[in-house]
Amino acid sequence: MRLGVYYYPDHWPEKRWSRDFDLMEEANIEIVKTAEFAWTKMEPEKGEFNFSWLERAIDELSDRGIRVVLGTPTAAPPAWIINNDESILPVDEKGNRTSFGARRHYCPNHPGYKEHTRRIVDAMGAKFGDDNNILGWVIDNELHGSCYCEYCKSEFHEWLKEKYETLDRLNESWGTEFWSQTYTDWSQIPTPKATTIRGAHNPGLHLDYYRFISDSWVKYQQLQIDVLEPLIDNQWITHNSMFRNYNGIDYSKLNNNLDLVSWDNYPLLTGQREDSSVAEAHDMARGLGGTGYWVMEQQSGPAGWQSMAKTPQEGQIRLWAYQSIARGADTIIFFRWRTCRTGTEQFWHGVLDHHGEPGRRYQEVKQLGQELDDIGDEIAPEGVPSSVVVIKDYQTLWAFDIQPNSSSMNYNEEISKYHKSLYDQNIPIDEITPRENFENYRFILAPNLYLVSDTLSARLVDFVREGGTLLLSFRSGVKERKSNKVVNTKLPGKLKKLVGATVEDYTTLAKSPWKSDESDELSEKPPMVEFVCQGLSGTVGKASIWVEALNPKQAKPIANYKNGMFDNQPAITINNFGKGQVMYVGTSLTERLHKVLARWMIDQFSLRDTLNTPNGVEAIWRGEHEVLFLLNHNPKAKKVDLTDNFCDLLSGDQRAKIQIPPFGVKVLKRDNN
Amino acid sequence: MRLGVYYYPDHWPEKRWSRDFDLMEEANIEIVKTAEFAWTKMEPEKGEFNFSWLERAIDELSDRGIRVVLGTPTAAPPAWIINNDESILPVDEKGNRTSFGARRHYCPNHPGYKEHTRRIVDAMGAKFGDDNNILGWVIDNELHGSCYCEYCKSEFHEWLKEKYETLDRLNESWGTEFWSQTYTDWSQIPTPKATTIRGAHNPGLHLDYYRFISDSWVKYQQLQIDVLEPLIDNQWITHNSMFRNYNGIDYSKLNNNLDLVSWDNYPLLTGQREDSSVAEAHDMARGLGGTGYWVMEQQSGPAGWQSMAKTPQEGQIRLWAYQSIARGADTIIFFRWRTCRTGTEQFWHGVLDHHGEPGRRYQEVKQLGQELDDIGDEIAPEGVPSSVVVIKDYQTLWAFDIQPNSSSMNYNEEISKYHKSLYDQNIPIDEITPRENFENYRFILAPNLYLVSDTLSARLVDFVREGGTLLLSFRSGVKERKSNKVVNTKLPGKLKKLVGATVEDYTTLAKSPWKSDESDELSEKPPMVEFVCQGLSGTVGKASIWVEALNPKQAKPIANYKNGMFDNQPAITINNFGKGQVMYVGTSLTERLHKVLARWMIDQFSLRDTLNTPNGVEAIWRGEHEVLFLLNHNPKAKKVDLTDNFCDLLSGDQRAKIQIPPFGVKVLKRDNN
Amino acid sequence: MRLGVYYYPDHWPEKRWSRDFDLMEEANIEIVKTAEFAWTKMEPEKGEFNFSWLERAIDELSDRGIRVVLGTPTAAPPAWIINNDESILPVDEKGNRTSFGARRHYCPNHPGYKEHTRRIVDAMGAKFGDDNNILGWVIDNELHGSCYCEYCKSEFHEWLKEKYETLDRLNESWGTEFWSQTYTDWSQIPTPKATTIRGAHNPGLHLDYYRFISDSWVKYQQLQIDVLEPLIDNQWITHNSMFRNYNGIDYSKLNNNLDLVSWDNYPLLTGQREDSSVAEAHDMARGLGGTGYWVMEQQSGPAGWQSMAKTPQEGQIRLWAYQSIARGADTIIFFRWRTCRTGTEQFWHGVLDHHGEPGRRYQEVKQLGQELDDIGDEIAPEGVPSSVVVIKDYQTLWAFDIQPNSSSMNYNEEISKYHKSLYDQNIPIDEITPRENFENYRFILAPNLYLVSDTLSARLVDFVREGGTLLLSFRSGVKERKSNKVVNTKLPGKLKKLVGATVEDYTTLAKSPWKSDESDELSEKPPMVEFVCQGLSGTVGKASIWVEALNPKQAKPIANYKNGMFDNQPAITINNFGKGQVMYVGTSLTERLHKVLARWMIDQFSLRDTLNTPNGVEAIWRGEHEVLFLLNHNPKAKKVDLTDNFCDLLSGDQRAKIQIPPFGVKVLKRDNN
Repeated sequence: MRLGVYYYPDHWPEKRWSRDFDLMEEANIEIVKTAEFAWTKMEPEKGEFNFSWLERAIDELSDRGIRVVLGTPTAAPPAWIINNDESILPVDEKGNRTSFGARRHYCPNHPGYKEHTRRIVDAMGAKFGDDNNILGWVIDNELHGSCYCEYCKSEFHEWLKEKYETLDRLNESWGTEFWSQTYTDWSQIPTPKATTIRGAHNPGLHLDYYRFISDSWVKYQQLQIDVLEPLIDNQWITHNSMFRNYNGIDYSKLNNNLDLVSWDNYPLLTGQREDSSVAEAHDMARGLGGTGYWVMEQQSGPAGWQSMAKTPQEGQIRLWAYQSIARGADTIIFFRWRTCRTGTEQFWHGVLDHHGEPGRRYQEVKQLGQELDDIGDEIAPEGVPSSVVVIKDYQTLWAFDIQPNSSSMNYNEEISKYHKSLYDQNIPIDEITPRENFENYRFILAPNLYLVSDTLSARLVDFVREGGTLLLSFRSGVKERKSNKVVNTKLPGKLKKLVGATVEDYTTLAKSPWKSDESDELSEKPPMVEFVCQGLSGTVGKASIWVEALNPKQAKPIANYKNGMFDNQPAITINNFGKGQVMYVGTSLTERLHKVLARWMIDQFSLRDTLNTPNGVEAIWRGEHEVLFLLNHNPKAKKVDLTDNFCDLLSGDQRAKIQIPPFGVKVLKRDNN
Repeated sequence: MRLGVYYYPDHWPEKRWSRDFDLMEEANIEIVKTAEFAWTKMEPEKGEFNFSWLERAIDELSDRGIRVVLGTPTAAPPAWIINNDESILPVDEKGNRTSFGARRHYCPNHPGYKEHTRRIVDAMGAKFGDDNNILGWVIDNELHGSCYCEYCKSEFHEWLKEKYETLDRLNESWGTEFWSQTYTDWSQIPTPKATTIRGAHNPGLHLDYYRFISDSWVKYQQLQIDVLEPLIDNQWITHNSMFRNYNGIDYSKLNNNLDLVSWDNYPLLTGQREDSSVAEAHDMARGLGGTGYWVMEQQSGPAGWQSMAKTPQEGQIRLWAYQSIARGADTIIFFRWRTCRTGTEQFWHGVLDHHGEPGRRYQEVKQLGQELDDIGDEIAPEGVPSSVVVIKDYQTLWAFDIQPNSSSMNYNEEISKYHKSLYDQNIPIDEITPRENFENYRFILAPNLYLVSDTLSARLVDFVREGGTLLLSFRSGVKERKSNKVVNTKLPGKLKKLVGATVEDYTTLAKSPWKSDESDELSEKPPMVEFVCQGLSGTVGKASIWVEALNPKQAKPIANYKNGMFDNQPAITINNFGKGQVMYVGTSLTERLHKVLARWMIDQFSLRDTLNTPNGVEAIWRGEHEVLFLLNHNPKAKKVDLTDNFCDLLSGDQRAKIQIPPFGVKVLKRDNN
Repeated sequence: MRLGVYYYPDHWPEKRWSRDFDLMEEANIEIVKTAEFAWTKMEPEKGEFNFSWLERAIDELSDRGIRVVLGTPTAAPPAWIINNDESILPVDEKGNRTSFGARRHYCPNHPGYKEHTRRIVDAMGAKFGDDNNILGWVIDNELHGSCYCEYCKSEFHEWLKEKYETLDRLNESWGTEFWSQTYTDWSQIPTPKATTIRGAHNPGLHLDYYRFISDSWVKYQQLQIDVLEPLIDNQWITHNSMFRNYNGIDYSKLNNNLDLVSWDNYPLLTGQREDSSVAEAHDMARGLGGTGYWVMEQQSGPAGWQSMAKTPQEGQIRLWAYQSIARGADTIIFFRWRTCRTGTEQFWHGVLDHHGEPGRRYQEVKQLGQELDDIGDEIAPEGVPSSVVVIKDYQTLWAFDIQPNSSSMNYNEEISKYHKSLYDQNIPIDEITPRENFENYRFILAPNLYLVSDTLSARLVDFVREGGTLLLSFRSGVKERKSNKVVNTKLPGKLKKLVGATVEDYTTLAKSPWKSDESDELSEKPPMVEFVCQGLSGTVGKASIWVEALNPKQAKPIANYKNGMFDNQPAITINNFGKGQVMYVGTSLTERLHKVLARWMIDQFSLRDTLNTPNGVEAIWRGEHEVLFLLNHNPKAKKVDLTDNFCDLLSGDQRAKIQIPPFGVKVLKRDNN
């Protein structure tokens, strides 16, 4: 277990460096990440390189045993590059070119920019590739973004040629006979720029463009890997993914050729409940690369650009660091060391405030550093024992982004609701995409599995036949995966046999337009879901977003609709298939119904892995039931009853009843005495 | 009475056709609409035509006695046309050109596109103009849209020259001395593109541009009529209007040179109460062309592009078809036959689902087909006996779109509120524009008649003088119709004599900005309307949007304001004029006040035409009190007491008390036994 | 005291003029403002001038003793100018050029437009500069607006060269090492056009652009002054500022070289409570130029473009005029005389309606004219005796516009809340910017003084040391004033010594994202403020927007936080410094807490200057306690107890208890009998 910080020596006077490095050493900081926004400093004009300042900083750091991770600086091309060729700047959906002045102001398909990229990466690799003080490399920074420029258009045509080979196949796949869009020359194919009616592009073309943009980033990253790899020695390459925030890149593909998975963790930056949604991102990092991944950026203060989000409360920085460890990280880099006095991220606070003197956040990091110095070796065994996995499919995410089906549909939220309902019961759960292997899990949750290929359906059939349990939900199997075409059989299409039921009818639950203001004569009662299976009978809660009337053949209903258009028809079914079972949930459930369903599934499929805890107290094993983390996300102290004998690694206490302070942490080992 | 469907043979394998046509025949489908989005299929490259696939489909259909309506395909110019000349694509208010990839991607004033249009329409007309299997033609599809390109600008200049002849007259009419906008050369006149302050264009110029755009579509349609007419034989020409959805075209003008009125009916597609607002659109179709119009597209499943609206409930498809017949349609074409597996309208469901097998919606259409086979001949006599008419003026609609006067003003809603208040009482009512004759009605409702010419005012004077009743409401007579200039007399301007009262003061009812949060000391009581006339005295309800303080000269108050700035001053007046009467409503009423007022007017002017029914049960005569339709728009069964003796045409029952099932229909004839 | 009106002789037939002028004379109107939108009329083509119509109008007016103020017409360049050179039109943030058709359609940095400006101003000055009927000149109309064109870009580069001299200094000041934005050539520096991430520009560059735009307007105004000054004789020059509505220009700088301060007063045009927020604008006019300023445009009817705001209620036009006098104006020009029948401002009502006949608003103006004829000489002595001043800093306003810090932050509202809390207690208060002298006041309120220079901090130190009282609030002293860089000391930075306390921690109060829907287990109690000082102890109210935990060294707490992250830590402190005192408020207060605090400060610092009045009744002295105005902003009559003996100047009454009618006014003098 190691801690690090982001530090930009170019932002501060050299005479200040030693003070900063001393403070780092004191706090047990062992790694510094740097250089990813210093292109002009490293190459003030074309081909003129200046790395001396960086070498001096690396030297001073290594004197204190602090080692360095370098970022390639391509997220922020210098003014001298852009001023020379403005066609590097990306173009938006309306056709307007972006301005210089922020970051990520380049098109990944621009040939000239690729040249600039190769030159700077080559120079850095040549300089630092065999430097023992350098641990590894991060490519660019938080890759993402769309572009609709002419270079993208012609690269898109190449991408399409590779996928479809002939225009006939493309026309057939997209169904371009609709609205007379048949292409008779590759050059006629547009990018999905703004049309007279927003969002009206052919869904086949549109999804292919999402795929193309994702692939463009993967390819652009590969270009840098290809330059770096021959130059480096005992150094790894990674990229800081944004699992929680960005939706435009298939992170499974992006992480495919990397030596290490890493991601950026800002618990307070979205409107979501941070304990569960951060846990979900950890579970994806672990799903993609196993334990031992890095949290490349970990929040260490209030963050934001024009406006700030809340500051972490006392204890939260330490709490989130332990959560990272508990769920599988081995290294945590705090972003950033000292809050920058200028620039767009002037208010993106680091461990130190602008004034540079140690404060409560430094003290918290320092305490953590000391604790990890004590117990770091014991607490991060390999593996987190998950038998359950949730599938998040980026292609499905994009397809729903193009066509939400129901205006209230939010695929990410549906995934999160299933994840959270088990997280809240302390069930460890991985998150993967369909590109990963899922054959070794016992239970797959694949909500809204919209795009299905023959291969994917065959893999799922095998999984269940061999004894696995599979949960699917509404709008599964609607589309052919390759073409984004609707299947020509009853739903859930290729998954019908697995589900043992068909979708006979469906409707969105958009607001009833026939509801008169002054009378309820024309309205109907809202649709509810009522469980009908043993132990849950009579539990009732609201259906929302979408409802499907299921027609069970082999399957049996677990719940039926009550009220509404599909009154009395099955809403949830379960089907025995091979040695396994398949559940199908025909609607979107409330949090309360999710809780009921989760508890039922935990019993039904024996998923319980650890103890029950009060609300907001996370309990998770790292290693094969070796180290148990109890993380209190509440601003109040909480009591937990331990069923076994445990030893508190930090205090040495052995008690069956423990109290965890507000935002506090307990790291426990089973006491075998 | 005939039923039809939209069917695109080019979307499906030819070997599937016969299965589809068999199913159609079984359901008593007699008409297929097709071809309007098949330009590339019919003309894969310039001047190379291929109609063979269409001929084969027409042949197969005619074998089963199904006849065909053809659409011209100009709503969707092929990629090969656009790729050759991108200046065909329309330009938005900000100056950005739209992208290829949806539909309606052309400027109707583009000279090159007019050439393309003539060529394809001429080829289709030459091929099918004397084909007995073709019933008629639909020009383009749902014409509408704005453009601000250079072609539009110079056509606008031509349009202005025709209207004003000299720049002096134009300057005088628009009052360009305001803000120094006097034009000294025609070329200086802009289109109303985005200015520094949104919506700030001269109201005279702005309204003329709305008129010009509407006229551009009328002219573009005429171009196609002119090509087709010499080529066709015993075939009619129509256009599918969007009465309920589009506001940019004067549908009176657009339907002027057509052989037939037709419109597209999607009850669930807007947020409005579908029974009344659909009825209003029917009443406009009938107002423009009498009974016997077509519902060119009738909803047959859940519809939507990126997201779907609700699916029709069991019975609603049949119910809406009967509503169409009851209010005057003779032919109903369901859109569409089978749900398309690809393209933007992938989720715009037809009678069949994507999988192509008959389901509940097919069964409902089939039942309807059988019923119409039984009773179709009896139920559609000519005429719906309306003595009341509501005037919807497109020019007023546009003028309010440019300047709403009050930020809460919605002209369409005001029209609908008056229409609905009588619809809810089962009073049959036509809807027309001022271009139609209104002399044969007994009662005209003309809410918010904002733009008034000398001619229009004279026609209204004649109407009332001869015994007609006229209802006007706030902001009537504010503007000169031609110039959009405010009149220089007291309001209601040219209508003053008719109203017998003047508007002495007015104000919007926007939120009171002087209302303090912590005290009500600075606030005043909200303005109410209180009836003062016999039988209604003391009925009180809220005024909203706008209030006018009326000063009655010859007129008498029916209601006064209570509270507010105009406390105690008249809000509604009635005036005897010639042999008739004029009511003036100085504010916008709540639904409750509308109901009270409607009942009072029904008594006062003896408008009752049929029986009272429970809320949500529509009752309307077709023919001269020949066939009575009872339509239950409720999801619950409803009982109706019939005062006369009736015979139920579908069941043969004769009962005075009938129960109509949820979404059910009764078609009755007076029982003369 | 004089009254005037805006009148556009070019909008009306000449034969109507005499009727209008007679009505003006009758209402005691002594001034007409005109010509500012008549460029085309005065110069129909380049270099051809026509002033005869204007001379005739001036002659007819002078016959009645009405004198004229002329506006230069540059806010509305004619079509013939724009059609010749569209590069005059401003460019928006996205790069789209605006259209001709509204007003303010020019870039103030366009060299060609400067030439046009010089020519028309020179011609007008030459014609009317020595005309005794002309009182003075208004430059342009309500200057404001942004532009991002190429001319602005190169002028911005010149502006930057003047400010920074070298690129090294600019790079250092902006901290361009952040995100690799170091500029190696002036031409590389962008204007802050839209970037990939909205609002992400370097805060140093961004604030400099705001300053540059403000300076561009000041410079453009100076260009006109420089042309006019040599040509005029006994005429003054002013500009009609928009204190209440526009935020883009530093009005202190803009008014610097003008002979007279004037502003445009539309009480009903914003969502704010009009009595207090209008009072605040008056207090700024007076703060910048003392009493004797003009209200150049005073609301005289309902106003608005596409939609109207409310009409003034009976009495309000007169009430607002008296409020203008009471707070320091000497001349009031009603905008406008007669409501225009055409153009964008068709619904911007004047004293007369469109029909041109006298109505209730004319009668009210006439009554006012007669009253001022009677008592005008007595009621406007020089000075309004304010010992309190609030500082509104435009640079801080812009800096918060770029970076609100908290998404709920609104600097103008914070200023207004402090102003209003004292206004509501009838404490007279000036409003100034840091450019004005504040040394003669006793009490300075400087909420959120975000940008502080050494000079400004030294001036404040002197002020307090000499016995002044200073109030500061949260986010004060955060930034270096010149560079928009965060200081490198604890907050409040350069103000620390004055405050005698430091900010130890801070956080926004954005919505708690960890609040679960179904349980309050994870939530915490909302932060409150509880007074701890004598007399207020235990008064509790909500903190909002932002909270700072204060660490008092020399200072003492007046209030502490209760609940929340900073429970029990100081929220408000007071510090003795030199002979004076400094208060620091670490959060944003509710209206209720502001009221409590205001009352406490009034007692503590002996600020009471006049009597207490009921809510909504404004009381203010003009002159050194010579004339007392009581203004009832309520729609109800209000009683006031006078403690002294007063004489009612309008009625001659002498009573100790008076009743003021709804929207009524009392003008009182102390009765020395």
